[in-house]
Amino acid sequence: MGKTRIVMLPATEVDLTTVKYDPAEIEAPHITGLSLKFFVKLVELPLIGSLIIGQIKKQNKMNQILRDTLIPEPPMFRPEFPPQEPESGVVFLKEDGKSEERVESAVKCLPQYDPASNHNSASTPFRYWKIRDYAYSYRSSLTTPSKVAEHVITAIEEFSNKKPATPLLISFNPDDVRKQAAASTQRFQEGRPLSILDGIFIAIKDDIDLYPHPSNGATTWLHELRTVEKDAVSVSKLRRCGAILVGKANMHELGMGTTGVNPNYGTARNPHDLDRYTGGSSSGPVAIVASGICSAALGTDGGGSIRIPSSLCGIVGLKTTYGRTDIKGALCDGGTVEIIGPVASNVEDIILIYATILGSSPADKISLHPSVPCLPDLSSHENSNVVGSLRLGKYTDWFNDVFSPDISNTCEDILTMFSETHGCKVVEIVIPELDQMRTAHVVSIGAEAAASLSPDIQIGMDKKLTLDSRINFALFNSFTAADYVAAQRLRRRIMYHHMEIFKKVDVIVTPTTGMTAPLIPKSALDYGESNIKVTGNLMRFIIAANLLGLPAISVPVGYDKQGLPIGLQIIGRPWAEATILRLAAAFEGLRVDTKQPASYFDILKEK
Amino acid sequence: MGKTRIVMLPATEVDLTTVKYDPAEIEAPHITGLSLKFFVKLVELPLIGSLIIGQIKKQNKMNQILRDTLIPEPPMFRPEFPPQEPESGVVFLKEDGKSEERVESAVKCLPQYDPASNHNSASTPFRYWKIRDYAYSYRSSLTTPSKVAEHVITAIEEFSNKKPATPLLISFNPDDVRKQAAASTQRFQEGRPLSILDGIFIAIKDDIDLYPHPSNGATTWLHELRTVEKDAVSVSKLRRCGAILVGKANMHELGMGTTGVNPNYGTARNPHDLDRYTGGSSSGPVAIVASGICSAALGTDGGGSIRIPSSLCGIVGLKTTYGRTDIKGALCDGGTVEIIGPVASNVEDIILIYATILGSSPADKISLHPSVPCLPDLSSHENSNVVGSLRLGKYTDWFNDVFSPDISNTCEDILTMFSETHGCKVVEIVIPELDQMRTAHVVSIGAEAAASLSPDIQIGMDKKLTLDSRINFALFNSFTAADYVAAQRLRRRIMYHHMEIFKKVDVIVTPTTGMTAPLIPKSALDYGESNIKVTGNLMRFIIAANLLGLPAISVPVGYDKQGLPIGLQIIGRPWAEATILRLAAAFEGLRVDTKQPASYFDILKEK
Repeated sequence: MGKTRIVMLPATEVDLTTVKYDPAEIEAPHITGLSLKFFVKLVELPLIGSLIIGQIKKQNKMNQILRDTLIPEPPMFRPEFPPQEPESGVVFLKEDGKSEERVESAVKCLPQYDPASNHNSASTPFRYWKIRDYAYSYRSSLTTPSKVAEHVITAIEEFSNKKPATPLLISFNPDDVRKQAAASTQRFQEGRPLSILDGIFIAIKDDIDLYPHPSNGATTWLHELRTVEKDAVSVSKLRRCGAILVGKANMHELGMGTTGVNPNYGTARNPHDLDRYTGGSSSGPVAIVASGICSAALGTDGGGSIRIPSSLCGIVGLKTTYGRTDIKGALCDGGTVEIIGPVASNVEDIILIYATILGSSPADKISLHPSVPCLPDLSSHENSNVVGSLRLGKYTDWFNDVFSPDISNTCEDILTMFSETHGCKVVEIVIPELDQMRTAHVVSIGAEAAASLSPDIQIGMDKKLTLDSRINFALFNSFTAADYVAAQRLRRRIMYHHMEIFKKVDVIVTPTTGMTAPLIPKSALDYGESNIKVTGNLMRFIIAANLLGLPAISVPVGYDKQGLPIGLQIIGRPWAEATILRLAAAFEGLRVDTKQPASYFDILKEK
Repeated sequence: MGKTRIVMLPATEVDLTTVKYDPAEIEAPHITGLSLKFFVKLVELPLIGSLIIGQIKKQNKMNQILRDTLIPEPPMFRPEFPPQEPESGVVFLKEDGKSEERVESAVKCLPQYDPASNHNSASTPFRYWKIRDYAYSYRSSLTTPSKVAEHVITAIEEFSNKKPATPLLISFNPDDVRKQAAASTQRFQEGRPLSILDGIFIAIKDDIDLYPHPSNGATTWLHELRTVEKDAVSVSKLRRCGAILVGKANMHELGMGTTGVNPNYGTARNPHDLDRYTGGSSSGPVAIVASGICSAALGTDGGGSIRIPSSLCGIVGLKTTYGRTDIKGALCDGGTVEIIGPVASNVEDIILIYATILGSSPADKISLHPSVPCLPDLSSHENSNVVGSLRLGKYTDWFNDVFSPDISNTCEDILTMFSETHGCKVVEIVIPELDQMRTAHVVSIGAEAAASLSPDIQIGMDKKLTLDSRINFALFNSFTAADYVAAQRLRRRIMYHHMEIFKKVDVIVTPTTGMTAPLIPKSALDYGESNIKVTGNLMRFIIAANLLGLPAISVPVGYDKQGLPIGLQIIGRPWAEATILRLAAAFEGLRVDTKQPASYFDILKEK
C-alpha cells in the first residue's frame, strides 16, 4: 500500500538528547475576501471538499500523526494531574468561601496601596487605573460609579458608531449599566460597598452568560436557539461583589479564530494601532481593558483566546488551570481544553478577579480533585526570597522561533534582567512532540465544538456562520472518532513529558505569541479571512496550557520596533496559579517603557 | 432541510413517570457464508459502503441520537463516580497488598469448607470441583497438580483435534503446563504451597498477555506487530499465587462479537449443546470452565464479553468496576468500557480470583480514586441479615423483553423464591434512554477499537480480519469525532439516571441475556456471520455496566425448555463488588436443578 506504520516509543523511553526542534511551518493557503467565499463553496462540496481538507491535513501530517502511528499510551480525555507539591509563600483561600470574602483576602495579599503613586505620577501621560485606584476614589468621594459610567458608556458607543464599526461590546444596554452604577453609587453613599470590586467596570465575553443579555458567541443566530436564564457561575460571583457588568464583549465567532476578525458585528481594533488586529478570540474583552474603559473582563481560553490578544494589546491575561473556575454558563461548557479567566491591565487586578471567580464545579471537584486554591503573598517580605528560588525553564530553539527577532530579544532581555535582579535560574529544557501536541489540540477542540454545534447544523445554521468558521468546521467534521481517541493518547504522552520537565523547573517561559499584532486586510472586514500561517504564529506557544490544562499567564514585557506590545508567557504546574501570578508581578515590576495606547478612556480628566 | 433539531431536557428534569419502555428492535440484515463475503466487499467500497452503513445507522436512529439532538450535559469520557456509602458486613483488603496474602484473606470470608460435601455427594452425576476441593485434594495428597495436568492436557487437545476444530485454547504448550504443574507438585511435596491457588488451572483469554504466549486477540496476525514481553498485571498476580496458567483461550476476534464464532481458529462449543454458541467474546474462557477443565479463567468485558457467555454456558462471570483491576497488558488497555474479570463455575471461586487480581493501575488510582476493596463476609452469621436488608431494583417491562418467556419466568421465579427466603424487597424501577445508552456504548467501544487498530490498517491488516469484524470496523470508522463527544455527553446523563436509581435500590437485577445460546449456522464456521439481531438480544441488559463502569455479575439460575442455561444479572453500585458477590452467592444457594454439561473433564475419576 506504500504506507507505513509508525511506532512511537513509550513516552517514558523517549531520549530527549536526540530531540531536534522542528520549526514546522503550518501549510495552508491565505485566503480573504471573495476568494474566501469561493473557497468555502469548494470545501463544502461533498467530494472536492474532502479532497481539499485531505490535502491540508496531509501537508500538516495530521493523518500520519493520528492514524499511521502506534501511540502506546492509553488515552487521557481531559487533564489528569499527578499530586502536586504545595507552593510556598502563599495564602490559602476557601474554595467554597463567599466570593466577596475571597476578594478581600486577596487584597491582603497585595503590597500596601499608595494612592499618590498613581495620581501624582507625571512620568507617563496615561496609566491604567487599577481596581484599587477606583476603590480609593469611590471611598474618598473623588468620583462615583455613576460618573464613571457616563464616560464608559460614551466610550463604548463611540467605538460602536465608528465607520466601519469597531465594537468593543456586541450586546450593550446603557440603561442597565446606569442602573447598576446607581446602585453601586448608593452603596458607597451609605458607606457599605460590597467589596473592593464594588463599582468596578467589567466586560464579559459573548460566550459567557450575562443575564439578561443573549449569548451569541458572536454569531448572528445562536440566541434563537439558546436562551440565557441566569448569569454564568463566574459572572454571578463578580455580580455579588458589586462589579458593574457592562455587557457582552466582541469576539472571534464561536472562539474559533485567533485574530478577532468579525464580519458579523465589526472587528475590534488594537488600541496600539487601529489598523491591526487585537488578536482573539477574546478580542472585545482585551480591547475594552487595553483601551482603559473597563478594569477587567472575563474571557475564555481554549487555544490561547485570552493570552494571545492580551499579548498583542499589551495587557495581562490569565489562563487558569483546567477546572479551577466553573465553566457552567459558558458556551464551551463541557470542553476539555477551555477555561474562564480574567484579563486586566496589571497583575494586581488579575489577582483580585481571579480570587473572586475561582471555585471548581461540583463535578470537577469529584473528578479532578483540585488543590486548595491559594494566592501569592506579595505583601510579605518573604516574597522576594520565594521569587529568587524559582527555576525558569526555557526551550531556546522554540523560544527563538518567532516571526520577528524583536520578540525573542525583548523576552530574552527581560529574562536576563529578571534573573540578575532576583537571582532566579533560567534552565534550558527540551519539549518533544510539539507537532503532535498541536494536532491533538486541534482535534480535541474541533471535535468538541463540532459536537456542540451539530444539532444546529441540522437546521442549516452552519450556512449562517462566517466563512472562516465554515472552513474550520469542514476540517473538524473530517476527524473520525478514532482520530479523537488517538489525540487523547497523545495528550497522555505530552502530559508525561511536561510533568517530567516540571520536576526540573518551576515554570516554563516563552514569548506568548510568535508575532506581534498583524495588520487587518481591508477585504477581511466584510468576509473574514483564513490565514492559518498567522494562526500558527499566534498559537505557537499557547497549546500546552490548553491540551494539558496548565495555568499560564501573559504579561507585557516591551514593544517591537513598530511599537507593538510583546508578551511573555509563564506556564505553571497544575494548580500553581500562585507561582505564575507571583512571577508575573515580579516581571511587571521590572518594566520601564510603558506606553500610552492609541485610544483610551482617560478617567484622569475627571479629577 | 426537512431535518429537525431535538432538544433533550437536562437529565435532572426528566420525568420518569412519562418514560415508556420501547422494545426497539435493532435493524440489520442477518448475513452469513458467501453472502457475507459479498456484503463486506460492498461495505468497503467508498461510496456504496457509506450508503449501506448510513442506512444501518439510520434504521437504528444513530445519527438522530448523536447529531440531531442537543444533549445538555457535558461529556463524561469515562466513568466518574460520586462518592459512595461503604458496604456493610464486609472485610476490607489492602489494595496494594500481595496477591497471595489477599487471596488468603478471601478464603477467610468463605463459609467453612467441608470436603465431604463434594466428594460424597451422590445427588448429581457431576459437580464442578471448587478451588478449595483441589486445594484440599492436593494438601491431602489425594492427587497432585501434575496428575491433574495430564487430564487437562488431554481434554484440551481433544477439543482442538475435533473436526471441525472446537478449540478452547488457541495458544497452548503442553510442556509449559507440565513444567508449571511439576513445580506446583513439588511445592506441595515440600509442604509450602504459595496460596490456595497453587496448582489451580486457569486459562487466560487471548487478549490478555500471558508470557511467553503471543496475544493475538484471535486474529491471525497481531503477533507479527505486537510482542508479548511479560505477563499482564492481573496474570502476574495469579502466577505468584501458584496458579497454573494453561494458555490463551479462544475468543471472538478482537472481542468484537457476542457469539464467539471464530473462522480463524475454529469456534468453541457450548458444553450444554455442542451445536450452539458459547456466546462471546470470552468463548474459550467460559467453555474451558463450563467443561470442568479449568477452575477459572480471566476474560475481558467491554460489552458483555464475560457475562454473556457465562450466562449461555451456565457458569458465573464477574464484570468488575471500571478501574478496579489493572488492565495493563490487555489489548483493550486504554478503553473506557472494558475491564478484566474472572469466570468460574461458582461464586466462591469468583471471590478467590477477584481478590487475587484486584488492584487499580497507578494512573487509575489518581484519576478514579477507587474505594478500598472489600469482600462480603460470607463466613459470618451476619451475612443473612445483610442479604435480607438489600433492595433489588427491577424494570419489569425491560426484564420481560426477552426472546423466550422461559428466561423472564425463570428469573422471576428465582427472584420470588429469593425474596421469600431472605426477606429482600424487589422494587420496581424505570430506566430511561436505553436506546441512547446502546448508541453511546457502540460509539465508545467502536472508536476506541478503531483507534487501536488504525496503524495496523495502514499496512493492510484490516483485509486479514474476519468478515464480521470488517463490517464492524466499517461502522466504527463512520463515527466522527463529534459523534464520540456526543456519546460521552450521553454517558453523563445515563450515569445520572443510574445514580438516581441507586438512591432507591442497592442493585439492579435483569436476565443476563435476552436469549439462551443460539444455534451455530453451518456456514458461519468458515466465514462467520453478521447477525445484529442476535447481538441485540444477547446485549440487551449488558450495556449499563460497561458504559457506566458498574460492577455486574451473571449467576446461573436455571434452564429453558431446551435445557439451555439461563443467567441472572446483578448490577451493583460503583465499587460495590462485595454486594453483588454476596447476592450472587445467595442466589446460587437457592439452586436445586444443576445439570451436567454435555462434555467435561471429570476429575472425580481420579479418586
